[in-house]
Amino acid sequence: MEGVDHLAHERNKSEFDVDAMKIVWAGSPHAFDVSDRISKLVASDPGFRKDNRSTLSRKELFKNTLRKAAYAWKTIVDLRLSEEEAAKLRFYVDEPAFTDLHWGMFIPAIKGQGTEEQQQKWLPLAYKMQIIGCYAQTELGHGSNVQGLETTATFDPQTDEFIIHSPTLTSSKYLSLLLASVMTWEGSPVPFLFLSQSGFYNSCFHCSVQWWPGGLGKVATHAIAYARLIVGGREHGVNGFIVQLRSLEDHSPLLGITVGDIGMKFGNGAYNTMDNGVLRFDHVRIPRNQMLMRVSQVTCEGKYKQSDVPRQLVYGTMVYVRQTIVADASCALSRAVCIATRYSAVRRQFGSQNGGPETQVIDYKTQQSRLFPLLASAYAFRFIGEWLKWLYADVTQRLQANDFSTLPEAHACTAGLKSLTTTATADGIEECRKLCGGHGYLCSSGLPELFAVYVPACTYEGDNTVLLLQVARFLMKTVSQLGSSKKPVGTIAYMTRVEHLMQCRCGVQRGFAELSVDLVEAAVAHCQLIVVSKFIEKLQQEIPGKGVKQQLEVLCNIYALFLLHKHQGDFLSTGCITPKHAALANDELRSLYSQVRPNAIALVDAFNYTDHYLGSILGCYDGNVYPKLYEAAWKDPLNESVVPDGYHQYIRPLLKQEIRTARL
Amino acid sequence: MEGVDHLAHERNKSEFDVDAMKIVWAGSPHAFDVSDRISKLVASDPGFRKDNRSTLSRKELFKNTLRKAAYAWKTIVDLRLSEEEAAKLRFYVDEPAFTDLHWGMFIPAIKGQGTEEQQQKWLPLAYKMQIIGCYAQTELGHGSNVQGLETTATFDPQTDEFIIHSPTLTSSKYLSLLLASVMTWEGSPVPFLFLSQSGFYNSCFHCSVQWWPGGLGKVATHAIAYARLIVGGREHGVNGFIVQLRSLEDHSPLLGITVGDIGMKFGNGAYNTMDNGVLRFDHVRIPRNQMLMRVSQVTCEGKYKQSDVPRQLVYGTMVYVRQTIVADASCALSRAVCIATRYSAVRRQFGSQNGGPETQVIDYKTQQSRLFPLLASAYAFRFIGEWLKWLYADVTQRLQANDFSTLPEAHACTAGLKSLTTTATADGIEECRKLCGGHGYLCSSGLPELFAVYVPACTYEGDNTVLLLQVARFLMKTVSQLGSSKKPVGTIAYMTRVEHLMQCRCGVQRGFAELSVDLVEAAVAHCQLIVVSKFIEKLQQEIPGKGVKQQLEVLCNIYALFLLHKHQGDFLSTGCITPKHAALANDELRSLYSQVRPNAIALVDAFNYTDHYLGSILGCYDGNVYPKLYEAAWKDPLNESVVPDGYHQYIRPLLKQEIRTARL
Repeated sequence: MEGVDHLAHERNKSEFDVDAMKIVWAGSPHAFDVSDRISKLVASDPGFRKDNRSTLSRKELFKNTLRKAAYAWKTIVDLRLSEEEAAKLRFYVDEPAFTDLHWGMFIPAIKGQGTEEQQQKWLPLAYKMQIIGCYAQTELGHGSNVQGLETTATFDPQTDEFIIHSPTLTSSKYLSLLLASVMTWEGSPVPFLFLSQSGFYNSCFHCSVQWWPGGLGKVATHAIAYARLIVGGREHGVNGFIVQLRSLEDHSPLLGITVGDIGMKFGNGAYNTMDNGVLRFDHVRIPRNQMLMRVSQVTCEGKYKQSDVPRQLVYGTMVYVRQTIVADASCALSRAVCIATRYSAVRRQFGSQNGGPETQVIDYKTQQSRLFPLLASAYAFRFIGEWLKWLYADVTQRLQANDFSTLPEAHACTAGLKSLTTTATADGIEECRKLCGGHGYLCSSGLPELFAVYVPACTYEGDNTVLLLQVARFLMKTVSQLGSSKKPVGTIAYMTRVEHLMQCRCGVQRGFAELSVDLVEAAVAHCQLIVVSKFIEKLQQEIPGKGVKQQLEVLCNIYALFLLHKHQGDFLSTGCITPKHAALANDELRSLYSQVRPNAIALVDAFNYTDHYLGSILGCYDGNVYPKLYEAAWKDPLNESVVPDGYHQYIRPLLKQEIRTARL
Repeated sequence: MEGVDHLAHERNKSEFDVDAMKIVWAGSPHAFDVSDRISKLVASDPGFRKDNRSTLSRKELFKNTLRKAAYAWKTIVDLRLSEEEAAKLRFYVDEPAFTDLHWGMFIPAIKGQGTEEQQQKWLPLAYKMQIIGCYAQTELGHGSNVQGLETTATFDPQTDEFIIHSPTLTSSKYLSLLLASVMTWEGSPVPFLFLSQSGFYNSCFHCSVQWWPGGLGKVATHAIAYARLIVGGREHGVNGFIVQLRSLEDHSPLLGITVGDIGMKFGNGAYNTMDNGVLRFDHVRIPRNQMLMRVSQVTCEGKYKQSDVPRQLVYGTMVYVRQTIVADASCALSRAVCIATRYSAVRRQFGSQNGGPETQVIDYKTQQSRLFPLLASAYAFRFIGEWLKWLYADVTQRLQANDFSTLPEAHACTAGLKSLTTTATADGIEECRKLCGGHGYLCSSGLPELFAVYVPACTYEGDNTVLLLQVARFLMKTVSQLGSSKKPVGTIAYMTRVEHLMQCRCGVQRGFAELSVDLVEAAVAHCQLIVVSKFIEKLQQEIPGKGVKQQLEVLCNIYALFLLHKHQGDFLSTGCITPKHAALANDELRSLYSQVRPNAIALVDAFNYTDHYLGSILGCYDGNVYPKLYEAAWKDPLNESVVPDGYHQYIRPLLKQEIRTARL
């Protein structure tokens, strides 16, 4: 039955114009065209094959990624792809690689923090990949807290250089700190032991090595490394430096640089294609002009000064990075939802009558109640990502006009939505995997790898809980200013409606930290409100295509009512709804699920994902799941021989009762 | 600082007798002794090393598992371990292997379903491992629904044999079904196409191959295979058969058997040490006496008959298997909690004052509110597991006396608690991983593997949602019988208290399936009630040891109030609590977290896990995390050479601008 579409009967059921929905999902006809063209180009090129990843050893896997990265670059050069097309190509190659950091962090950091002169020197080299860069801002003992970094960059005016160094217990600053604390403790016979046992001493021999930067372990020739700037014995906070790591001739690490890979991470393929690295600096010298000097400068005489470039620009960059993470969340979640939805239509279980076919699992209400809210979330996140893109453009424009007024709100929005969407997406992918039953546990389902490759998004670029606390702080500040002349606008405009509450005397005596758990919940609620209201705003626009808007309205209602159900405790305890309302909402949800059901397959088809990009037998377009699973099984290396390697040494002695004399 | 205990200051804080708690956790002094002795034996034997798993290729990984399984058996034989000790040894070796199925499914199936004669023939062979068995009950197209299996076992009276066969589209029964359905459709030009597109036809060429059985792929010499029994052209439901798969001389598959591994699964090591298998029978003949005949028999004349052994015994076995899964849940969850708790005490982030140490992350309320409910859950699941063990013993005793009265309740209990504890444990492990921040993503944290190896528990031995629906059905039946002479007892005794509700006229018109989502929620609530009340009952017993009972009381309250908070919507909407109550419960939770804090490390020490069993650098007993992470990194195969394999082919051509002519 090759070439047969096993889901055609599902596709025929749909009540809306799928092609029009594809444009809505892509954002514009142009965006659709580029995505469609480039994804098919990647899918049809055997050079980008990825179905063999899970069986490769770490070294084979990594070497294969190096090949693909080079091949992608060759394709980009050969076909003279535009910057937009090149970015899409890397996206659809769908394999974490050093190039992500080169294009996504190294180049933007030079653009954002480098002077005109520095940009002119370094960017052309980076654009042509004559150098390959990474971004080193996390130490083994210091992740989220950038201000806690221990690496130092000490200016040496005699040579006009900085000395980059990873301090250890024996380095002078730390030794003196150590001795000072020992001396305050009388009669301790074993000072080191005491220090360690007391838990007082915060540093350790290894805490200050750089740890995690992608591309650092084996590939990057250069790094933007962050370090405490020390000029004339005074510290001036953390700054970025361009540091060459490896020889451009033979790739060996330069003097004073100890560098390697940090080892295996979650999943089979997943992020193990990336050389996340460990790096120790031992008094590495770099020219003074390799300090990124857009915001602060050090002169050759050893004077530290700050430029008039506003420091707030840094927040603009964070807004940018986090809005791309939100956009990626909708991609990852929609991919998982596409797989689970198609497979739920293929899979049948129970409910057979008179020997007839069993029931498609997508027809079970229990399946629908878990799957369809995720489908709705994928669309909701797509639209919130679109809105954040607009917000970033708006903020950038304002910053250029020296208007910083909307920056705090934009910062809170992106921080909160980054946290909300990545948490929901990580959980959603795993839920989709479970919705595929046992077969979702196979690598060939694509879901284990999708999960393993996605979950770090909950931690990088701001731990999700830390980010919510930032949002909470912003909300508390806004509330404290209610009644003043500063009226809340934008996403916090709704607060004017609760202004009267602020007149009440508040009995709370505890501090922020003590109430942080509740504050996190408030921050989540605030962010959910943004997602729901932007989805509603989207629907107030004109959306062409038969039935398209109606489908989106159903999804929007599912998204909102699902949240109401999930958080009904908060709504009930604050008196916003009654138990009767809660029950009605539940009834309405059930009815909405029935409305989605016939359109489910078409709603995931609208993502326009190729089978290559999906990377899942369970989610393949034609629904021809079982033969493909069966055939894929035989490709496992264990099946290369009928009798397994190890039979003679380890199985036969068991069966032949010769285990006591066997060599094991 | 080798040998220093970096968590000593935490251990000194604890307010209870840890050794006494270890006995409580183990269940008895004897159980503690066996666990302690065997876990240390495994930990100290380099033959059971497991820290290198994540870097091995599939073939190396599998071969290493074969070696360990043989080595474990040799150790058991050499040391003349008791059955209890041998089981503990396999547990602490902590690597899924074919032996799990041999001891856990193959042997119990023969014991439970085989006649006396069959047991006498097969069990001695199995006990000595002269044969190695697996358990084949799932087909590619049929998982949870055993009654939907397609494999057939047709009796041939001429040779006194069964013919075991995996039907395909061409097999007669299915062909006739197929033709019948084609013929009812007039004018279809392409019958096969139509059948497939209509989604009507339930079977497929590949659906009936056995798929998933562990140990089948490469090792087992025999299988208990389930098939539809056909005698004299009549079908008699699904029955088990002992089928030899491979030659005992050279391990090659026997005539008519196509067998192999199904390929890679979630995670690096995890279940990839197991040869889950695919198996196709092509008219495989086995002697009649290899049908498991305890419950039904086929005589040599081809007569089918049923014995007087009650069929309910099958449910007894299910109760047994599921109660072991609940016990395993507390092991897996406590392991993750131990890792996350110790690392949360080691890790410091933010909050540094005047250059002093940063705050231990375990001191943040946001961390406590996520971690401590999981710590409480680990203890709750331990005690519910203990109670289920008692329940199983009780049911078994009753079954032997032909008392089936408590079986439905016992069945509902174990089904529901299997679902509840495995779902909570899978989610809890992942939550613990996130609580470890970025480093939790490293394989050396142990958490990715723990998650990947644990999650199938949500699917095997009954999909968790399907099981909750069974519980819901039991609850509805109980409710419908309220007011009759049949008084609810045991875990459903509380229902008598709501009997008056049953007098109300019910407006619900919809059926079970339509309301299944709500019914699942009701089933979860019922199961949570069991866990909480059994925890409270446990505390009504005498528990020796200074402060032990007090600590358990705190944990029990956290468990209960955390649930109240999580499900406050249900409590509020049913009027069981007021918003005021909900707020008070929240305050109380905060206070309870503060009470747990100084005891947290001691509470996870009480699990008495060796560093070998934990398999986590982040969770190591001495808390000396960073140096160990640093050292472990260098063992990755990528670090075998400074310049990575692939540099000359794939990196240098980029840097040297020679990509267009490179061979990729």
